[in-house]
Amino acid sequence: MKSGSFDHHRVEPGAKVHLDRLTTDDKGGWGGKDDPAVARQLAEDSARLSELQERLFAEGRRSLLVVFQARDTAGKDGVLGHVVGPLDSRGVDVKSFGVPSREELAHDFLWRVHARAPERGHMTFFNRSHYEDVLAVRVDSLVPEETWSKRYRHINEFERMLADSGTTVIKFFLHISRKEQKRRLADRLADPRKRWKWNPGDLAARARWAEYDAAYQDAIERCSTSWAPWYVIPADHKWYRDLAVSRILVEALEAMDPRFPEATFDPAAITIPD
Amino acid sequence: MKSGSFDHHRVEPGAKVHLDRLTTDDKGGWGGKDDPAVARQLAEDSARLSELQERLFAEGRRSLLVVFQARDTAGKDGVLGHVVGPLDSRGVDVKSFGVPSREELAHDFLWRVHARAPERGHMTFFNRSHYEDVLAVRVDSLVPEETWSKRYRHINEFERMLADSGTTVIKFFLHISRKEQKRRLADRLADPRKRWKWNPGDLAARARWAEYDAAYQDAIERCSTSWAPWYVIPADHKWYRDLAVSRILVEALEAMDPRFPEATFDPAAITIPD
Repeated sequence: MKSGSFDHHRVEPGAKVHLDRLTTDDKGGWGGKDDPAVARQLAEDSARLSELQERLFAEGRRSLLVVFQARDTAGKDGVLGHVVGPLDSRGVDVKSFGVPSREELAHDFLWRVHARAPERGHMTFFNRSHYEDVLAVRVDSLVPEETWSKRYRHINEFERMLADSGTTVIKFFLHISRKEQKRRLADRLADPRKRWKWNPGDLAARARWAEYDAAYQDAIERCSTSWAPWYVIPADHKWYRDLAVSRILVEALEAMDPRFPEATFDPAAITIPD
Repeated sequence: MKSGSFDHHRVEPGAKVHLDRLTTDDKGGWGGKDDPAVARQLAEDSARLSELQERLFAEGRRSLLVVFQARDTAGKDGVLGHVVGPLDSRGVDVKSFGVPSREELAHDFLWRVHARAPERGHMTFFNRSHYEDVLAVRVDSLVPEETWSKRYRHINEFERMLADSGTTVIKFFLHISRKEQKRRLADRLADPRKRWKWNPGDLAARARWAEYDAAYQDAIERCSTSWAPWYVIPADHKWYRDLAVSRILVEALEAMDPRFPEATFDPAAITIPD
């Protein structure tokens, strides 16, 4: 157990972020995907996460919101499969945000997101999120700078309100290298079981790598707050990405320390008739 | 593998249902919870279910709606934990229906249910459902008979519309004995980790066992259709309940036969720039 060893991926409020100086292939001193210590840690954290999730659900007072943002192929789906998939679906929700519908576009950018915020006792995972409105929307100039530039504050205050209302908010940027993305896109094309994920838009986004870097950096710098921190997770190694995300989630839930509620009645005073 | 050996739990359209004549402790020829064949079958079906779910999601054209109804402690939560929990949360939704909110009561009884129907590619599991409106609502006389008696038809036609629109609908009644319920309620009281599930309403419902029997029988008889069958699953043995539900779900998905979509482009014609 190397507790706490992923804390340095958290972006401190006010810190500058240079994505091209942040490693994408960190192994954090672990031995790699075949290291038995990695498998052991993943299994241990998975069990711990399940237990903490059950307590959060039983307690029914607070919730956890986890945002995933990343370039295509960086592993949002992978983490959701490996780390979130095994959790009990009763108290766990995954919400994917795609191109907004006509109805969604007829409202402010936080409207559809707010409607999907976790209910008390739940863990909700956002596959993309309101951050798209300062990422793709900015890079593709879908709204003028005057509009998107005001959104960082809107986002921070929205997340502050959630935090003040009992929702712990954690945000992950899964950071892969340009080279690793190429390898994974090629895989996606080659494998008939993965080909359905191919989207011609992936290449368009790849072509604007630097513009996305700038947009991610601004979003992470301006919106990593004490109440809703961003983590930049090196994601070239899938096992490291899963390990880091699991451990950070476990620590966040341990800090929340959810408890099974006390009985509000005397169990001994109850008789169950035949 | 005893394929198809759970089919006899399906209620054929038009068949009479007498819950007190239907077994609650069937073992179907299996050796019990410590029978290695049971563990093997459960593991095999779990893997198969995951694979079929991925195909359904990738295909993105059809969906599966699974309804669970049962008395308290009969194991809705258990099945949702054991059978549904391990599935990939991205394409799997669990919706629980409790006492309706003010807004829900301001609409017809199918309104809140329709809003939670599965999206294409998803498997959605209902923990309680629109059937409460001919069960608890009937037993507790929350609406007059004139109102609830029309709902069987409303339900059948609603489910027909879903089926015609690409949603396979399957409904499970988890059937436990009065004696087994007593044992489980006592457990719930005794175990501090389970006590939060205790609800004084559980005893009130137990006191109206016969009225509930009558209501369940009518719902199952009148609403087991060729397009949305009811299954009455013997649920005194948790392992048998899980085995039966898993196997029936696997067979339903195999009959749907979801496929990974074909590429609409020529992968060989695509170059990924460095």
